[in-house]
Amino acid sequence: MAQRHPDPTDTPPLTATGDALAGYLRAQATEFLRALRLHRETGGQSGNTPARARAGGGAGVGPNGTEASVDAARALRRSARRISASLHTFRPLLDPDWSEEMRPELAWLSGTLGLEHAYEARLERLLLALQRLSGAVVFPGRTATPAAVGPSGPDRPTATAERSTLTVGAAKAGALLERQLTLARTRAHSTALQALGSSRFHAVADKVALLASEVPLAPAAPTTALHTLAAAAEERLTDAVAALPLVAAGHPYNAEALVHGLSPDPSPHPQDGPWHQVRLLLRLHRYAHEVLHGPGTAAPVDVRLLAAGQALNRHRDASEAAAAAAQAARTPRITPATAYALGVLHADQRHEVEASRFTFQRTWQKHTAATP
Amino acid sequence: MAQRHPDPTDTPPLTATGDALAGYLRAQATEFLRALRLHRETGGQSGNTPARARAGGGAGVGPNGTEASVDAARALRRSARRISASLHTFRPLLDPDWSEEMRPELAWLSGTLGLEHAYEARLERLLLALQRLSGAVVFPGRTATPAAVGPSGPDRPTATAERSTLTVGAAKAGALLERQLTLARTRAHSTALQALGSSRFHAVADKVALLASEVPLAPAAPTTALHTLAAAAEERLTDAVAALPLVAAGHPYNAEALVHGLSPDPSPHPQDGPWHQVRLLLRLHRYAHEVLHGPGTAAPVDVRLLAAGQALNRHRDASEAAAAAAQAARTPRITPATAYALGVLHADQRHEVEASRFTFQRTWQKHTAATP
Repeated sequence: MAQRHPDPTDTPPLTATGDALAGYLRAQATEFLRALRLHRETGGQSGNTPARARAGGGAGVGPNGTEASVDAARALRRSARRISASLHTFRPLLDPDWSEEMRPELAWLSGTLGLEHAYEARLERLLLALQRLSGAVVFPGRTATPAAVGPSGPDRPTATAERSTLTVGAAKAGALLERQLTLARTRAHSTALQALGSSRFHAVADKVALLASEVPLAPAAPTTALHTLAAAAEERLTDAVAALPLVAAGHPYNAEALVHGLSPDPSPHPQDGPWHQVRLLLRLHRYAHEVLHGPGTAAPVDVRLLAAGQALNRHRDASEAAAAAAQAARTPRITPATAYALGVLHADQRHEVEASRFTFQRTWQKHTAATP
Repeated sequence: MAQRHPDPTDTPPLTATGDALAGYLRAQATEFLRALRLHRETGGQSGNTPARARAGGGAGVGPNGTEASVDAARALRRSARRISASLHTFRPLLDPDWSEEMRPELAWLSGTLGLEHAYEARLERLLLALQRLSGAVVFPGRTATPAAVGPSGPDRPTATAERSTLTVGAAKAGALLERQLTLARTRAHSTALQALGSSRFHAVADKVALLASEVPLAPAAPTTALHTLAAAAEERLTDAVAALPLVAAGHPYNAEALVHGLSPDPSPHPQDGPWHQVRLLLRLHRYAHEVLHGPGTAAPVDVRLLAAGQALNRHRDASEAAAAAAQAARTPRITPATAYALGVLHADQRHEVEASRFTFQRTWQKHTAATP
């Protein structure tokens, strides 16, 4: 009984001055520098780097080193996002010139570093979906009673011909997506490598190094501002959520995500915009919460916010995967079977978009019910 | 206060003998003959009969006559289904030879007469879905905030080129489906006309005419059998429902209906079989209920059964529409844009299949909760 575990429902005392912000920024800057050092030590290569890009990398990078490098890049993005978000939410508390110069640079960095991973995850999502749609996943005990199915039995003479056509379609769609997204990923990898070697990056790293020792606070910041600014960030979030079509999203199978499935410009789906915006505002709110209460203070409300954020991440991923399938279908000279598979895949991912909205609506409802 | 309206929650007294069955069969046979007479008087043509088939029909059939003819054909099917179902459920109460000879003939008749309408409804469902998927339905107040959408604005230079490609895809898919399903419908219409002129049909009609005056009951039927046989029909239904994957169906967005979306033989989807079977068993149960309680005794439990049946009708319609889209995608020499649109359409209809299962699960849950 030496140590008392903190009660997760206890609200930690709020720091009303800029001290908490300065402490948070210093900690994130230190984390950024640690991740950067680690990234350099591990060769700055990521997981499944294509051979072409890998050839230019450092020798002696083993599988563990490569994995560590992926982790390091993720940690780098993670702290860059948090510093950037805090600069945005708590802008009046910080030196305005420094803050306005710093923020777009951090956004550029985390954007550039995140792209390679995004393409990799998108390809994996699409290939898994193709596998699922091809019936590769078997549900035992779900077999049909053949007598109930109707006149067409499994021995129809055309079944074999149809099988080959469609299997080819799914396989070709997979190969096409793999080719296109691997190319995009290779390019993103090169761009990230170039970025990390650029003078632009070194300028950012230098500024973050300064931030780790001294946070340029505004000279005359009001003492209560930290809490007020965090509350404003939360208000921007709740306003944006209130503008979402949550009633429709709460009705399962409303079929709205696919409404523009064959519309002229599915990339990006305009109806997804407000949801993407809420995703960003939710993240800003979560980071502001970290500044106030310290990271890792997992009150139950945070768990629900995390779940809501995960639903919106899935929404974004599915939205972009659907767009990638639609984009691939515009490749010249593909076969009709490939295009058909891509159409099914696109609709499947838009279905996921709709499902994510439903999950978000449910999670948000629970969150607001639990919030005083 | 001269007449007392029946309380819908009152259970009418059960007729334990075959009298109720005989009365029901006579009434349905009379209805069949009335519909047949009406059908002949109105020329035996249906609504949007293609010109080719219409040319062979009777002269002087105006628009009202045509509509009346569609109604007559529907009434004919309706009573044929009910007679056939009663012959099945109450078989031990009826002359076995007569019953076994009669039933397949009635099934043939209602199947043949129903096909034309099925193709028409399928085409309408698919064209409406294509319209919805092309974004023809506009939701006001759901526009995206352009700033939140990302770098690609509405003025991207390729938007016009993409628009034409995809619009052509949806339009071509619609034209292809219209061609294929109209052809199928025209054939079904000819087949129905031939059937109505055949000696096979006249034999059925003669038997139904006999049934209208005298029902061939089995010589030594047990007095309690009517109720017992109806209960057995209900038990077959509840057993079949219990075997359905209802837990999964009750979780929205389980994505199971599309699991075989790209599998070799999507027509018919084997996983749909048990649901189609329940649809038939539900109908048998409903008709048996009519025999016991009289048609039109709408207790609240019947309303839920009707709703459950409607969900399964929608399940069947969406399943067959999805199969038609998949089938159309196998047409030789279609363009990739057409195939892509058909893939999206197929997935959309499988999504409807999943939605129907969800609705059935909810309705059935309410039904069983209300049943003592």
